[in-house]
Amino acid sequence: MFPNKKIQSLIGHKIRVEMKGDKNILEGILTSADDYLNLYLTSTTEIVDGERKRVLGSVILRGNNIVMINPVN
Amino acid sequence: MFPNKKIQSLIGHKIRVEMKGDKNILEGILTSADDYLNLYLTSTTEIVDGERKRVLGSVILRGNNIVMINPVN
Amino acid sequence: MFPNKKIQSLIGHKIRVEMKGDKNILEGILTSADDYLNLYLTSTTEIVDGERKRVLGSVILRGNNIVMINPVN
Amino acid sequence: MFPNKKIQSLIGHKIRVEMKGDKNILEGILTSADDYLNLYLTSTTEIVDGERKRVLGSVILRGNNIVMINPVN
Amino acid sequence: MFPNKKIQSLIGHKIRVEMKGDKNILEGILTSADDYLNLYLTSTTEIVDGERKRVLGSVILRGNNIVMINPVN
Amino acid sequence: MFPNKKIQSLIGHKIRVEMKGDKNILEGILTSADDYLNLYLTSTTEIVDGERKRVLGSVILRGNNIVMINPVN
Repeated sequence: MFPNKKIQSLIGHKIRVEMKGDKNILEGILTSADDYLNLYLTSTTEIVDGERKRVLGSVILRGNNIVMINPVN
Repeated sequence: MFPNKKIQSLIGHKIRVEMKGDKNILEGILTSADDYLNLYLTSTTEIVDGERKRVLGSVILRGNNIVMINPVN
Repeated sequence: MFPNKKIQSLIGHKIRVEMKGDKNILEGILTSADDYLNLYLTSTTEIVDGERKRVLGSVILRGNNIVMINPVN
Repeated sequence: MFPNKKIQSLIGHKIRVEMKGDKNILEGILTSADDYLNLYLTSTTEIVDGERKRVLGSVILRGNNIVMINPVN
Repeated sequence: MFPNKKIQSLIGHKIRVEMKGDKNILEGILTSADDYLNLYLTSTTEIVDGERKRVLGSVILRGNNIVMINPVN
Repeated sequence: MFPNKKIQSLIGHKIRVEMKGDKNILEGILTSADDYLNLYLTSTTEIVDGERKRVLGSVILRGNNIVMINPVN
């Protein structure tokens, strides 16, 4: 399964996304994704030092600033 | 709704944009957006430590340096 | 007006450009711009802590390293 | 062998990937890769100071944030 | 003159290039440039704190990591 | 000679590559390169403070994270 297909398979599921910059980690429901890995998440929260810090709700993430995507079980 | 369509749906609304770099956070009215997520905002202010710091007026943001986009309610 | 059209409308005018990296801020006359937002500025000066620091004259800026563009009134 | 073909030849093998940012180093089984070097790894662990730190399981890595890829023998 | 044409007009001339990262500044003769602003310089020296530090000879610079290009008179 | 042709002319030769991030410098034999400047090096070593630090063997480097490429004589 190619990386972009793997992402598509995660739609509707909770994922963890590590962004570039000051160690931004986000968790949310993956609602859509395009081929650039731009992501639209809902019910998103920001994770700092392993704890939920800010409730962000719905966010759009720019693909090129995503470092790593994990499914959350 | 794909990420770029979600962005289009926010035109005319206030959004919060987190840019790469020294934790630049901007709030403004989304006036236009292209497929690279380059954004044109008006009535923009810079947010530092949760407070409005600089009034920037109209700005153009380069899509690849955008980390995250939020609607502001 | 799309972001790249907005940029075109600023040709001949003074703009302020924030670049990635150590808070590089430049002011100059926008002379040309392409679709990648690569910019050619003339009469450019570097701004540090709100003061004019270095006169740079004519410069070419790589679009992907531009964070934000502002018209200067 | 072109870089992307070399990557394809590593599918099914353990690789070490150095990501941009706070010296993220990951080791995992390369499961798929596309032409942008987006990678899908399984059985992934994070390496900090030469020691295995976090078990991440399956991850997707954005190609443009990959600095270096090594086969692990 | 578009930014890439301006670059072409500098071939054979000495330019100063500011790269991303730890304030890398290079001076050299621009020998060729492509549309991505990848540059091939000869007789290149590295500038640190306004002084010539390392003689690098011929170098290839990746366009997306170039912040700013200046002609040197 | 265009930058990408210059790179092709270095195949089979030892090059020094400066990567983005914590001043990663690598030396190795350039084995292949594509138009994005993705590189495949063999007999690679990492250089820190001018000294050889780690033997890395064969590595793939992502073009957009390359700052500068030098031939090594």
